[in-house]
Amino acid sequence: MTDADDRIADGVPVTDAATAADAVEPDDVVLVSGFGGVGYPKRVPEALAADDRDLSLTVISGGGVGGEIDDELVEAGQMARRYPFQTRSVSRAAINDREVEFHDRHISRFGDEVRLGDFGDPGVAVIEAVAVGEDWLIPSTSIGHMPSFVAAADRLVVEVNETQPRLLEHVHDVYLRDLPPNRDPIPLEEPIGRVGSPKLEFDPEKLVAVVETDRPDDPYDFREPTEADTTIADNLRTFLEAELKRNPTLQEQICLQFGVGSLGNALMGALSEIEFADREVIYFGEVFQDGLLDAIDEGMLSGASATSLALSLEGQERLFDDIERYADDVVLRPADVSNNPALIDQFGVVGVNSAVDIDLYGNANATHIGGTRIVNGIGGGGDFNRNCRLGIIALPSTAAGGDISRVVPSVPHVDHTEHDHSVVVTEYGVADLRGASPAERMGAIIDVAHPDFRADLREYRERALENRGHVPVSADSEFR
Amino acid sequence: MTDADDRIADGVPVTDAATAADAVEPDDVVLVSGFGGVGYPKRVPEALAADDRDLSLTVISGGGVGGEIDDELVEAGQMARRYPFQTRSVSRAAINDREVEFHDRHISRFGDEVRLGDFGDPGVAVIEAVAVGEDWLIPSTSIGHMPSFVAAADRLVVEVNETQPRLLEHVHDVYLRDLPPNRDPIPLEEPIGRVGSPKLEFDPEKLVAVVETDRPDDPYDFREPTEADTTIADNLRTFLEAELKRNPTLQEQICLQFGVGSLGNALMGALSEIEFADREVIYFGEVFQDGLLDAIDEGMLSGASATSLALSLEGQERLFDDIERYADDVVLRPADVSNNPALIDQFGVVGVNSAVDIDLYGNANATHIGGTRIVNGIGGGGDFNRNCRLGIIALPSTAAGGDISRVVPSVPHVDHTEHDHSVVVTEYGVADLRGASPAERMGAIIDVAHPDFRADLREYRERALENRGHVPVSADSEFR
Repeated sequence: MTDADDRIADGVPVTDAATAADAVEPDDVVLVSGFGGVGYPKRVPEALAADDRDLSLTVISGGGVGGEIDDELVEAGQMARRYPFQTRSVSRAAINDREVEFHDRHISRFGDEVRLGDFGDPGVAVIEAVAVGEDWLIPSTSIGHMPSFVAAADRLVVEVNETQPRLLEHVHDVYLRDLPPNRDPIPLEEPIGRVGSPKLEFDPEKLVAVVETDRPDDPYDFREPTEADTTIADNLRTFLEAELKRNPTLQEQICLQFGVGSLGNALMGALSEIEFADREVIYFGEVFQDGLLDAIDEGMLSGASATSLALSLEGQERLFDDIERYADDVVLRPADVSNNPALIDQFGVVGVNSAVDIDLYGNANATHIGGTRIVNGIGGGGDFNRNCRLGIIALPSTAAGGDISRVVPSVPHVDHTEHDHSVVVTEYGVADLRGASPAERMGAIIDVAHPDFRADLREYRERALENRGHVPVSADSEFR
Repeated sequence: MTDADDRIADGVPVTDAATAADAVEPDDVVLVSGFGGVGYPKRVPEALAADDRDLSLTVISGGGVGGEIDDELVEAGQMARRYPFQTRSVSRAAINDREVEFHDRHISRFGDEVRLGDFGDPGVAVIEAVAVGEDWLIPSTSIGHMPSFVAAADRLVVEVNETQPRLLEHVHDVYLRDLPPNRDPIPLEEPIGRVGSPKLEFDPEKLVAVVETDRPDDPYDFREPTEADTTIADNLRTFLEAELKRNPTLQEQICLQFGVGSLGNALMGALSEIEFADREVIYFGEVFQDGLLDAIDEGMLSGASATSLALSLEGQERLFDDIERYADDVVLRPADVSNNPALIDQFGVVGVNSAVDIDLYGNANATHIGGTRIVNGIGGGGDFNRNCRLGIIALPSTAAGGDISRVVPSVPHVDHTEHDHSVVVTEYGVADLRGASPAERMGAIIDVAHPDFRADLREYRERALENRGHVPVSADSEFR
């Protein structure tokens, strides 16, 4: 390995992954770094999967992590519990088979909850870094809840990843909040400001092992934008351009956020087609995806704040090759800062998040297919949807190649309520729900459903309107 | 009328209610003061109800108001739309009959939404005050969204209520936030601190009429605590005493919030039975109800912050008689401060809110009976449930004299999701849901259901557990 001397400070002993894994107790609560599929530890989880001992671990991450954790530990039967988000087919199947107990929480509040023992007594934090000293480390490609996790855990294991540039330190703004009561607000005055440090400092007594790795992240692959994605982006553009004209909070600056995933990435990529006039355009979200690289390069985006460089491997390469330049405009924060309700509100963010399905009243299911099988988790969707100046749900009108309507009379699981977001966008248009009563919402939302399903939805609405009630419902629906 | 000179500054012309009503256009968006059934204008709404013109008003309040608005305007057919909360049987019936269009929003965000025109272009604000000058007024028994409403409206009508003490000015802390982007956090550093002024200042050009009234508020009547209320309070006490011992955020101070209503009032009244040891106990909520008066008098509560003195008439009399003493410990704020997500988080509030029903997964319906007929509105329940350090849902296990279980397999309307609150309390115990997976939650919640319904709920759970899925569900349920 190259430049190890720059990575690991003198006097910090390095060990192998199997030895580091010995620091993990069989029923430990293990807090791992990682968010958006990047910045997670690789070697130690792999060693835990291969461990001779019969482990029953609780694994807690900030967001999505790679296969070394959510495939290998699950397949080895070493993971008993998992919080609060996952993105892998192996862990998803185990959770849906209830072989692994799982519950998902709002990202913004999760760091506090872990520190206060809501998910068990935190034992060991396993953290990926690009450099480490006796009492500090520099995070790698995501921060997530790393500061809270390191503060909460009794022991700390650090994996130093030498495939990632040490210069990532230039993008980090590490900050740890005090716990309540009467804690200060986060003193961030503008979306791309900084309030912390490039380094995460820790109690040197906690450091039990340092391991080296040269394995790259295994991040999401984004599919190419579909025709539906492109049409949704067009509809969103038309809506935003009208809103920019009328909304007094958007006259000088607009902060945008897009949810994780291929649709979010496609929407980010379509930003450059929007007529923002002289406004400053800033991304203030949870993940920095490939779609934003062009917007930064073109200068149309003056900055981006996130908690994860959730880039494809190609995107990572592009960013790593030019990290110092990107670091002028890109800042990574802890997830309880990137997703903080107060900051989302102060900056007046316009947030665009997706859903599995949405009902005629505006309730959105973002997590469970059929109300039962989990997809990934709620992530930051609730943080942004509720606290944004303008919360937008964007989703294709159908699933399963057009066989299933994503617009349904009643969603089988509710993650975002009718009280939260304001606008729904599909490839068939925009339903602006602001000020609309449930009966009015039904009409507006049916108008953006796929034409093949509108007649049935209208029939449902007619039947519902025969009944009394502020929220018109009908017991008989072919949709459920 | 007495002491009018102290109430209405020299040079401010006074008119009668009918003349003031002329300032309201037939299809105006009318923003009225009032929250928790107090501090709402009486004479001008009554004059609008009696107006010869055919009106089609949009009426927007902060929270609950009295019969002059939600009975008389509705019965006269002068109200077309209503936001975001109501508590009267007449308005409730009209909304459920869809004669009045209605939609409810989270209180904390509503002031901004009104200012930005989400519910139409604000025309006139009709505000109750205890005193008025050319460019200022002193609110009466509630603040609610008064600052946002006065800022948003083109015209201002003030009703001066001489039955309420002018000394109410000592309890008020009026503060208007800037709009986004990049607005400051609310600079409140401790729950009973002050950041504003006793007076609300306004552009004198807006003031079109001042009317006098000597009519008292028509606030809620609280029923006497039922046996179920008392048992719920006991269970909450046992839980809180254990939590006080273990939770590091509660060692020196506890901020409590209780939802509006008779159960909330009963819980407030039972506060003095809790062993808080040396902790400072503070109320940081939305409404100040009768149950808190004893706690203040006994000195067990060191202060109370709210947006409404939602007292019974007897409670008002008790407070008014001793207003200067109470003003040392009681502060009224705008609803977007009292319910602010950032402040609820900073102070580490423990919030207790009720629900119509709750399901086995922890989702709560707080607004719609049978998912269709509205009760009051969501109010601040979502603000507190989601942003509290510890969000607690407290509800009796049954309704309709024991015939109906409030614990159901699946709530027919979701206001608070499984991701929000942490604990459920009924008269049969406490379900601590922290860290519990859906399958585990089902068991814990069934244990606090009424014994008469547990067998059926357990049968439902068994059937659900036969199916695959992170959230175990069964299509067949006798409950829906």
